[in-house]
Amino acid sequence: MTIRRSKISVIGSGFTGATTALMLAQKELGDVVLVDIPNAEGPTKGKALDMLESTPVQGVDARITGTADYAETQDSDLVIITAGIARKPGMSRDDLVSTNAKVMRSVTEQVVKYSPNCIILVLTNPVDAMTYEVYRTSGFPKNRVIGQSGVLDTARFRTFIAQELNVSVEDVTGFVLGGHGDDMVPLVRYSYAGGVPLEKWLPKERLDAIVERTRKGGGEIVGLLGNGSAYYAPAASLVQMAEAILKDKRRILPAIAYLEGEYGYQDMYLGVPVILGANGLEKIIELELTEEEKQALDRSADSVRKVMKVLN
Amino acid sequence: MTIRRSKISVIGSGFTGATTALMLAQKELGDVVLVDIPNAEGPTKGKALDMLESTPVQGVDARITGTADYAETQDSDLVIITAGIARKPGMSRDDLVSTNAKVMRSVTEQVVKYSPNCIILVLTNPVDAMTYEVYRTSGFPKNRVIGQSGVLDTARFRTFIAQELNVSVEDVTGFVLGGHGDDMVPLVRYSYAGGVPLEKWLPKERLDAIVERTRKGGGEIVGLLGNGSAYYAPAASLVQMAEAILKDKRRILPAIAYLEGEYGYQDMYLGVPVILGANGLEKIIELELTEEEKQALDRSADSVRKVMKVLN
Amino acid sequence: MTIRRSKISVIGSGFTGATTALMLAQKELGDVVLVDIPNAEGPTKGKALDMLESTPVQGVDARITGTADYAETQDSDLVIITAGIARKPGMSRDDLVSTNAKVMRSVTEQVVKYSPNCIILVLTNPVDAMTYEVYRTSGFPKNRVIGQSGVLDTARFRTFIAQELNVSVEDVTGFVLGGHGDDMVPLVRYSYAGGVPLEKWLPKERLDAIVERTRKGGGEIVGLLGNGSAYYAPAASLVQMAEAILKDKRRILPAIAYLEGEYGYQDMYLGVPVILGANGLEKIIELELTEEEKQALDRSADSVRKVMKVLN
Amino acid sequence: MTIRRSKISVIGSGFTGATTALMLAQKELGDVVLVDIPNAEGPTKGKALDMLESTPVQGVDARITGTADYAETQDSDLVIITAGIARKPGMSRDDLVSTNAKVMRSVTEQVVKYSPNCIILVLTNPVDAMTYEVYRTSGFPKNRVIGQSGVLDTARFRTFIAQELNVSVEDVTGFVLGGHGDDMVPLVRYSYAGGVPLEKWLPKERLDAIVERTRKGGGEIVGLLGNGSAYYAPAASLVQMAEAILKDKRRILPAIAYLEGEYGYQDMYLGVPVILGANGLEKIIELELTEEEKQALDRSADSVRKVMKVLN
Repeated sequence: MTIRRSKISVIGSGFTGATTALMLAQKELGDVVLVDIPNAEGPTKGKALDMLESTPVQGVDARITGTADYAETQDSDLVIITAGIARKPGMSRDDLVSTNAKVMRSVTEQVVKYSPNCIILVLTNPVDAMTYEVYRTSGFPKNRVIGQSGVLDTARFRTFIAQELNVSVEDVTGFVLGGHGDDMVPLVRYSYAGGVPLEKWLPKERLDAIVERTRKGGGEIVGLLGNGSAYYAPAASLVQMAEAILKDKRRILPAIAYLEGEYGYQDMYLGVPVILGANGLEKIIELELTEEEKQALDRSADSVRKVMKVLN
Repeated sequence: MTIRRSKISVIGSGFTGATTALMLAQKELGDVVLVDIPNAEGPTKGKALDMLESTPVQGVDARITGTADYAETQDSDLVIITAGIARKPGMSRDDLVSTNAKVMRSVTEQVVKYSPNCIILVLTNPVDAMTYEVYRTSGFPKNRVIGQSGVLDTARFRTFIAQELNVSVEDVTGFVLGGHGDDMVPLVRYSYAGGVPLEKWLPKERLDAIVERTRKGGGEIVGLLGNGSAYYAPAASLVQMAEAILKDKRRILPAIAYLEGEYGYQDMYLGVPVILGANGLEKIIELELTEEEKQALDRSADSVRKVMKVLN
Repeated sequence: MTIRRSKISVIGSGFTGATTALMLAQKELGDVVLVDIPNAEGPTKGKALDMLESTPVQGVDARITGTADYAETQDSDLVIITAGIARKPGMSRDDLVSTNAKVMRSVTEQVVKYSPNCIILVLTNPVDAMTYEVYRTSGFPKNRVIGQSGVLDTARFRTFIAQELNVSVEDVTGFVLGGHGDDMVPLVRYSYAGGVPLEKWLPKERLDAIVERTRKGGGEIVGLLGNGSAYYAPAASLVQMAEAILKDKRRILPAIAYLEGEYGYQDMYLGVPVILGANGLEKIIELELTEEEKQALDRSADSVRKVMKVLN
Repeated sequence: MTIRRSKISVIGSGFTGATTALMLAQKELGDVVLVDIPNAEGPTKGKALDMLESTPVQGVDARITGTADYAETQDSDLVIITAGIARKPGMSRDDLVSTNAKVMRSVTEQVVKYSPNCIILVLTNPVDAMTYEVYRTSGFPKNRVIGQSGVLDTARFRTFIAQELNVSVEDVTGFVLGGHGDDMVPLVRYSYAGGVPLEKWLPKERLDAIVERTRKGGGEIVGLLGNGSAYYAPAASLVQMAEAILKDKRRILPAIAYLEGEYGYQDMYLGVPVILGANGLEKIIELELTEEEKQALDRSADSVRKVMKVLN
């Protein structure tokens, strides 16, 4: 019972990692250590210092440091993994998976070595499989290894709906199950504006079009940026999950969780609604699905399993 | 007396411009239009959309759009100019000045055309001269064209002091006059921790070292990043000035202001303490300077004038 | 297109009015004028000054003034009416209605005189009838006179549900129609935790008990306080509505709106879901109701009409 | 290294205690237990419940409970004591001191019993002597018993100066030593607007008048309220100190600290500048005083000692 500021390490100092560090500091959620490989040590330190120099005008206190040395992550309460490569033209999906899995293993070993009691949030794609790899490598109990995808998918969905209806984003909710992006299983019947189901606000065709746009939401940003992928909304999504955990808010959010029979799946990570609190994943919320929804979720799970096979 | 959300346009969608747009939206200061040249239209739209998609999880309402068409900036209350190139290896300073001055003129013509009553904040370097160029091109009264440098310089100074003393950044203040970076004239006697002058906290050598580090603060980040320059702290500095104006807070901040005799200078822009409010620059605060300070400020002013000469 | 800080007047400097003023200032929504009758001028000024003296430590800029002179409310963007008496032992309901209606008329005449273009929010009980009285007296279009009850009723409902489920209040939503308190018509089928309908979280008996507790929520606080009624949650509810309007957020919230045929009612005020934005009430959202819900709403409307009769 | 939400107990559920609880919850600084005597149990529970019911619309998660049972304060990280009586007409100062000292002793025994490792903040007047009494009763080390007066005194001073200069309260600082109110020793030479000493902004007479108004600041509110004393600014002051401690911000603030030779005083509590962090009082900052300042501080210390004598 001593007062202690939280400590959060963000692995990967690319755009998403750096933006995540910024947003953690803005909310004074704790001190932030931004970590990357020795080759990127300069830019990592540069971004951290630049952020730190913004704290006086933002009116927040947070030690933000950049490093290539995992020793500085010691005793983190929370570790957020954004490291890994993006798929490049000509690269097969299996190559991407193998490469990032290797990254996950080496990152996780370091993380666990210095913070054996931390909670880990994973963003690296393909995120369901990568979260599994982190889980397996860490030896952590399942409540302490969680992946992010649903908060981002629903954020995009909510944005498009709010725009379409010309209402506040605060009053639109979305709901997804399953994998990220293409594999996501939207449950539109659990999505609302002002508490009123979206089917009462919009014709089916418009809703379908918005679901489809959401599914391709990551690709839409990639297409516009030309060179790179989304980082603002992914970072904000990670920070919402981090805040739920660090403040023990017990928020109900979609997350990639380890399943042991829930929804009929075993020994795999998949996106489901959960409660996030001080223990990380506090509870998985199980819903009855319609036949159609269960089939879509099965397809999503199959797709995740196919990726996982590459890992063995 | 009708209620109206503010509208802010940010010209230049590079790291600083984009981060500025993000922070404006986070504070719900108004709707944000991010503008860049047609060549960069895709990435500009991509960043804006990515940010917009973060608003539901950040719990803020702000329309954020990216465009290459100034028509979309119509009726902005505030325009923030971050456009321009950074100095590249082998480029003379005069080339940099001429190129960015050209950018300022073309940007300003467009801005003025669509928002004849807006207030303009300028960040582009060399910022004293560029703010002058925007002023001259706009035909605006002097209170509506303001440059940023001192908020950033003092933010860096405050960060270093807070680190050295191991105290909150909120309780450290700094004070600069004159140009940006190398040309800045720090008034350490007006800088405090907890209201106590810094000379009572630190020996002269340490203070001198920190002042010197502040002076080179931009270069330190450039050196670390390897490829690019600071954007987090510059963006936060612009947003602090924007907030002071849009909320009519009447904050006392260092800013680059048009001088007509103040501090003994005529027809030039230079960093001085001002009050920022709904009319932009509400007032210049004149201080008595010591002989030594006045000489340093003269040198800073000379340096600005030399840059300005390139403009004619 | 000039930048201007909003101005908000709060009529009635009792606990609710004062707490409302505090929360408006905390969010920097504008300058605040707290108004009460000449007899209460001292305490009104005292509370306003005490609040103003808290602004430096809260880090917000807001002019907060207390007065008995409506001239100081001149050109308010928003006026919030909390004035009126509470029902005392031995007082008939009709006496309460007549007394507060008289207060509404005299307050409204003053408000309209000094701020002919403002938007008015009403809290005074019985709120449906009092909002009608303000509407009638003001001569304002219906979008500029709105009453509060549903935000508070759902806030209580959400609190009880979040406690019961041990989850974040941010992930619980509620939905009510009709009058305040006893007369409220809860639509539990439009109420969720994490997007999942509450019926799937809790057995009907528990939900019914929580609805019943919500209905009596005001009375529960009165019973505990012994002497006085709730003010924290009512004030927060008013401020949420005020924020939606002043920031043009277009939030979907329950509000007491003037009906001209919506839901089958004419020329009366009743609680319905609306969109709140810069024009005040931007839109009424009409839902199909079940037979049972429609009957409950009819009863609620009857009850409001009975109160309104006292006014003629 | 487990994540845990902080727990804060506020002793005394009068206006100041209740407003303190509200502001702690608004900042999500932890769960809040509001405690009062059995006679006031109803109102204490009522205020706590009313506040709790405001959390959904304020968008914060905090368990707020009201109780007369100290067992519920168990394992608090921070305890804030606002309990005690105000001086009534006809009551001698010594009677006030004896009565409140008795309250301090009984409260402290309960607090220590249930939270032997907490940090205690004291507001009850006469605050220097009461903080000493809490310290003596608790047996706690001096860093864990701290009194509030200077944050409030400077808040008032800053408010008056900001009003006079028509600038943001954020850019005005003040500095006091010594006892509360009448006994306060303002160090105007360490007080600034925008970093510029106030003597350069205002003539001596105006400054003297504002210092005098600050000295009588509590009385000014009492005079206006007619029946009661200030609570908004006192609560905000306590919360600023609480935030500095709970977030380990290491803020430099004036506080009532136990002196062991600092400033030449022994075994007494007096207002001095300190650093507040996770250990409570992290450090006392010693300043060289002018002859005149030292004499004023001696008078202030004498005045405190006179009150302390009543305690033995």
